[in-house]
Amino acid sequence: MPQNNGPTEGNRQSAPVRVSDVGEFGLIARVAARLGSPEPPAGPGDDAAVVPTPSGCVIVTTDLLVEGRHFRFDWSSPYDVGRKAAAQSLADVAAMGAVPTALLVGLACPPSTLIEVADGLADGLRDECAGVGAAVVGGDTVSASEVCLAVTALGDLRGAAPLTRSGARPGESVVLAGTVGRAAAGLQLLLAGVRDGPLVAAHRRPTPPYAAGPALARAGATSLLDVSDGLLADLGHVAAASGVVLEVDADALRAVVPGVDVRHLLTGGEDHGLAGTLPAGVDPPPGVAVIGRVLAVVQGADGPGVRVVGEGVPPDLRGGPTKGASPGGWDHFRASAG
Amino acid sequence: MPQNNGPTEGNRQSAPVRVSDVGEFGLIARVAARLGSPEPPAGPGDDAAVVPTPSGCVIVTTDLLVEGRHFRFDWSSPYDVGRKAAAQSLADVAAMGAVPTALLVGLACPPSTLIEVADGLADGLRDECAGVGAAVVGGDTVSASEVCLAVTALGDLRGAAPLTRSGARPGESVVLAGTVGRAAAGLQLLLAGVRDGPLVAAHRRPTPPYAAGPALARAGATSLLDVSDGLLADLGHVAAASGVVLEVDADALRAVVPGVDVRHLLTGGEDHGLAGTLPAGVDPPPGVAVIGRVLAVVQGADGPGVRVVGEGVPPDLRGGPTKGASPGGWDHFRASAG
Repeated sequence: MPQNNGPTEGNRQSAPVRVSDVGEFGLIARVAARLGSPEPPAGPGDDAAVVPTPSGCVIVTTDLLVEGRHFRFDWSSPYDVGRKAAAQSLADVAAMGAVPTALLVGLACPPSTLIEVADGLADGLRDECAGVGAAVVGGDTVSASEVCLAVTALGDLRGAAPLTRSGARPGESVVLAGTVGRAAAGLQLLLAGVRDGPLVAAHRRPTPPYAAGPALARAGATSLLDVSDGLLADLGHVAAASGVVLEVDADALRAVVPGVDVRHLLTGGEDHGLAGTLPAGVDPPPGVAVIGRVLAVVQGADGPGVRVVGEGVPPDLRGGPTKGASPGGWDHFRASAG
Repeated sequence: MPQNNGPTEGNRQSAPVRVSDVGEFGLIARVAARLGSPEPPAGPGDDAAVVPTPSGCVIVTTDLLVEGRHFRFDWSSPYDVGRKAAAQSLADVAAMGAVPTALLVGLACPPSTLIEVADGLADGLRDECAGVGAAVVGGDTVSASEVCLAVTALGDLRGAAPLTRSGARPGESVVLAGTVGRAAAGLQLLLAGVRDGPLVAAHRRPTPPYAAGPALARAGATSLLDVSDGLLADLGHVAAASGVVLEVDADALRAVVPGVDVRHLLTGGEDHGLAGTLPAGVDPPPGVAVIGRVLAVVQGADGPGVRVVGEGVPPDLRGGPTKGASPGGWDHFRASAG
């Protein structure tokens, strides 16, 4: 079902209401009401929002999601898309070791968009934020020929140092919080016509392990990132930035995320699990599993990169030195996606 | 000239390079190089940026700009669009009384987009930021069917209180920093086929009075906003939020912005001038002009709103009580724009 045509269930009696019917200011008022009003002076209705930053700095990240490329309304409800859009950026904040505090959302959509779509997106964004104690504090709405969400998330480190990609050292453990590959497996099922089940749900609404970010920062993690392009590709960034080899044990990974093909485990990113490194002898925080180890780059051998060991790993997934491109990962300008 | 076809001047010998030729990671590397690298740990290349916030809070705002609606590449160069996109959000930060510190930019564009377009946008964003001491610290690139820029600007209040819309009180002055109406007059000229001149330049590349925001905060201004939808519409928000009548003197306005039709002065917004209120007896900071006064709402008369006095003001521009909608301003979902 195309997202902008026809009534949705439960609304078949009345004529569909479109964004053009309520206008820009009506849309803003409607969305702001659904989002709830943060305490002034922070919040919608002024030129900008004011967000407290007790640690003296702010963690900030921005992501774009485009209909047909990052989500499809015939696969996901607007509410699910709102939750997923928020989750994607909030996970980036957690991957810095920070606690999410606020979200800003730009919504570009055709005037013919059903108002239920805007409502569902707003509700999903609000609820995903509420789950981590954050709130939507600002945004923008404009007309466009396709639906595009621009999500900016802010966070506070609560006094911790930010977890970047360059701190991994030989002898440390490679760790994973949350899951990898389940959303990718769900996408494959959706492409095959399956519309239910836990893997499809994992694609529609990822559940990033937000609390693990700050917990890993407190535990002394030396690197952390949000797995958005796949474990091989994203750990490759850590390896390159840190100048090390990250060895991932596929058997350990399978134990953490059972029932998912190794290809999805190593190249699927949309679960927004958090992967990084932790010094030896440190107990992983709750929900964090060891999936490998950090090795030094051997003189004369390949440079920094990822190596996958364990049973049944196809040759093209055994890793290698990090190149400029994304090994096994996702390139937005060179492929088409669902 | 459509923006994605044909070589640009100075590049006629070689085949055009498109975004799809360099790929997502190539595009990010190229854009990041043009933007310059902020000092780590802030900046591109991690999940999120870290921006200092010495005042213990951050001012943050997000805006979307869509090709064909907010800009046209046959009227403006990619460099001009980049400058304008940055200016729009940086002006919102200044309108809170804050000093801009950082920008995040999401770029959605078709894979066929010429790489010069991305280069020009990046250069323009960088240069507009540099003019106010800010820097681009993060962003995202995705594929889309039209070019869309999502710009998030951050700022610091340097210890001042944020300038909202609700503080105007009777007896104060209405003030304006920068200009209004010149960009709208330039847009009208562009629509008529004119391609040069100071008003066309004002449309292509607005010059918001950034420094006036913090200066007005220090001087004790009681309200301030960025005039983005037109003076009538935007001052209407101040009037409604403050519960007052704002009386604008069209003759005073003409003296501040000479050579522009009163309709453009009162309804044209893209100059990103800053308008607000200042207590009586306070000298306006440099570059800030008095254009009216704040009156109390008279019992039994119309409610809060804007009233325009002076010679030669057409009846439909004399203002009135603020309604839910935008008087004389811009509604993104109910009109088409250039």
